Amino acid sequence: MTPRPLDGGVLIVGTGLLGASLGLALRRAGVDVRLRDHDPGVLAEAIELGAGRADGADGPEPAAAIAVVGVPPEATATVVTELLAEGAAEYVTDVASVKTFPVREVRALAAEPGRFVGGHPMAGGEVSGPRAALVDLFEGRPWVLCPDDRTDPHAVTRALAVVRAAGGVPVTMPPEAHDAAVALVSHAPHVVAALMARRFVDAPGNEVRLAGQGVTDVTRIAAGDPVLWTEILNANATAVAGVLRSLSSDLARVLEALGTSSEDDRRAVLRDMLSGGTNGRERLPGKHGAPHVEYATVTIVVDDKPGQLAALFADAGAAGVNVEDVRIEHSPGQPVGMVELDIRPEAETVLGKELRTRGWTVRD
Amino acid sequence: MTPRPLDGGVLIVGTGLLGASLGLALRRAGVDVRLRDHDPGVLAEAIELGAGRADGADGPEPAAAIAVVGVPPEATATVVTELLAEGAAEYVTDVASVKTFPVREVRALAAEPGRFVGGHPMAGGEVSGPRAALVDLFEGRPWVLCPDDRTDPHAVTRALAVVRAAGGVPVTMPPEAHDAAVALVSHAPHVVAALMARRFVDAPGNEVRLAGQGVTDVTRIAAGDPVLWTEILNANATAVAGVLRSLSSDLARVLEALGTSSEDDRRAVLRDMLSGGTNGRERLPGKHGAPHVEYATVTIVVDDKPGQLAALFADAGAAGVNVEDVRIEHSPGQPVGMVELDIRPEAETVLGKELRTRGWTVRD
Repeated sequence: MTPRPLDGGVLIVGTGLLGASLGLALRRAGVDVRLRDHDPGVLAEAIELGAGRADGADGPEPAAAIAVVGVPPEATATVVTELLAEGAAEYVTDVASVKTFPVREVRALAAEPGRFVGGHPMAGGEVSGPRAALVDLFEGRPWVLCPDDRTDPHAVTRALAVVRAAGGVPVTMPPEAHDAAVALVSHAPHVVAALMARRFVDAPGNEVRLAGQGVTDVTRIAAGDPVLWTEILNANATAVAGVLRSLSSDLARVLEALGTSSEDDRRAVLRDMLSGGTNGRERLPGKHGAPHVEYATVTIVVDDKPGQLAALFADAGAAGVNVEDVRIEHSPGQPVGMVELDIRPEAETVLGKELRTRGWTVRD
Repeated sequence: MTPRPLDGGVLIVGTGLLGASLGLALRRAGVDVRLRDHDPGVLAEAIELGAGRADGADGPEPAAAIAVVGVPPEATATVVTELLAEGAAEYVTDVASVKTFPVREVRALAAEPGRFVGGHPMAGGEVSGPRAALVDLFEGRPWVLCPDDRTDPHAVTRALAVVRAAGGVPVTMPPEAHDAAVALVSHAPHVVAALMARRFVDAPGNEVRLAGQGVTDVTRIAAGDPVLWTEILNANATAVAGVLRSLSSDLARVLEALGTSSEDDRRAVLRDMLSGGTNGRERLPGKHGAPHVEYATVTIVVDDKPGQLAALFADAGAAGVNVEDVRIEHSPGQPVGMVELDIRPEAETVLGKELRTRGWTVRD
C-alpha cells in the first residue's frame, strides 16, 4: 500500500489564527498534528482547542512529512531555514501573505531551498490568535502555492495534501503573480479601508453616530492588527504602491470634478468613476467562493527530478491554463514518474495540445 | 380626544426602496398611506407589496397630514414645491441623502417653505426599487430632521411622528451639519469603495479570483446605482471633496512611504496610518445601532409661532445637547404651547441651566 503524503504527520510552527485553524482542520481529517509556538501561552491555547499536540513533548520526534510555518512574514524565511537545517520536517511550506520576499530569502539562506514551497491560503480576518480559530476557515477558499524551477515536486505534493485536507482550493502561480494579486484584492483594500476609517478619529461624535452598515463594511478590515499589517505592506510595497497609484490618479480626477463649476463635467467624471466601480465589483467571486467544478485530468510522463514539475506548471501557465490540483505517482528508484494535472474541463484539449508541442509526453 | 399627528394620513411620493419601505412600516403602525409614483409599474409594485393605496384613485382626497417625498435628490425641491402648491398635504418632508441644496431650493421656490422640513433616514442599501423594500428598514436607524429658523413647528411634529411610527431614531441638526456628516459616513466611503472596485475592471482573472470576504465588504456599496450616486455626490460636492482631500493627502504619504528605501521610515508611516484606521473604526456605532437609552425629558413653555422651535433646537445644539425626540402640546388659539424635549439623561442638568440662561421658560 502506497503511504499517503501526510502519514508522517504535519508540524505547525506558529499557532495563531491560521496555524490553529489549520491544526483543527487537519486533525478532523485524521492527520497527526504537532504544534510549536515561541509563546507558551498561545501554544497552550491551541492545544486546548484541539488543534494538535505539543511537538517533542515526549522527547525527539522523527521528521514530519511537512512543516507549515505560520509566523509573521518578516520572520518566515528564518523559521523555514531553521526547520530545514534541523530536519524537523522533510518539506516545508508557509502561509505568509507575501511570497516573493520569503521565497527569495529562503533561496539565499537555506542549504536545500527546493524542499520549501511558498503557500498562502486566502483566508483569515481582522481578528487574530488561536481563540479565533475555525475548523472550516479554509473551506472552499483559494490556497495559493508558488513552486519555482528549484522546487522539489514532493514539496508540492505534500503541500497540496495539506491544502486538500484543510478543504482549500489549490491555485498555483509564480510568487510575483501572487504578490500582484494580493496587492489588488487584499493589501490595497486594507490601506483604503484604514485611510477611510482614519477620517473618524477627529470627527464630531454626532457625525460618526450617523454611520450605518455601508461604511461599517467599507472599513471592517481596518480593525486588523496594525503591527502585522505594517509588515505585510512593507514586504509587498512595490505591488501595493502600483495599485494605490492608479487609485490615487482616479481620486485626483474625482477631486478635480467635485471642484469644477461645470455640473455637466462633474457628472460625467463621477458617472464614469461610479460605473467603473459597479463593473469592477461584478468581477469579484460570489459570497461563497467559486462555483463547484468537476475537473478534467491530464496525465504527463516526467523525469522524476527537481525542476520538472515547475517547468510543467510554467508551460501550463504559458498556455493560459491554471492547475487546480496535481498528483505525482512514481516508484522509488524509477527514473520516470506520472504527473496528473487537474484542470477546468474546457482547458483539457488546449493543454494536451500545448504540452505535446512543448515536448511533453502526454498520455491519452 | 386630541387628534394624533398622522390621523389625516401620509402621502408618499416616490415608491422606490425608501418610499415603499416607509409605506410598509406606516401601514403596520395603523396609518392610512396613499402612494404616488411617476412610474405606474413602480407604483403598482408598491401597492401589491402592501405599502399603501393609490392616491386619488376614487377621486380628489383631502390634504394628507404630511407628505414624504422619496424622489432623487435633484428632483426633490420641485416635487416638494408642487405638493405644497397643490395642497396635497398640510406639511411635507423628504428622504433625500443631501439637505442643504433641497432646503435652499424649497426656500427659493415655495410660497410657504416653513411647511417643509428636510429629512433623511440613515437607511437603504445598494439595491433599489420597491421589490427590495423592508418593513423594518428604518428600525433603530438614525433619521435626521433639519428644521431651520423658518420651519413651522407642526411640520417637525408631523415628521417626528413619521419617524417614530417607522421605528427610526430622530436626530436633529442643521442642513449643513447633516451634509458634512453624510459626506463623512456615506458619500466619501461610497467614492472610496467605487475607486477600489474600479481597479478590478482590467485586472487578470486569476488575480480577481483570489478575492475574499475582506475586499468584498470594502467594495459592497460600490454596487449602488451610478446614476443616483452621481446626483448625490454632485449635490454634496463641497463636503465630499473636503473628506476626500484629507484622505488623498494621507494616501500621498502612504505612497511616498512605500517608495522610500528606508524600511524604518516606511514602517513608521504605515503603522501611523494603520493605527489611525483602527482607532477611527472603534468610533463607529455597533452593528445593531446605538444602544437603547431611556431618555430624560425637559419641558419648555414657548410662544406657538414659527421660528421658536428652531431657536430652541439651536440653543440646545449650542449647549452641546442632541435632541432625541420632541413633542409639542398646544391648544388651538392659545398663544403659548409646551415643548417636551427628550435628551440623554446625562444632559438634563446642563440643558435646563443653559436654556434658562438663554431666556427660555423651563418647567421643573
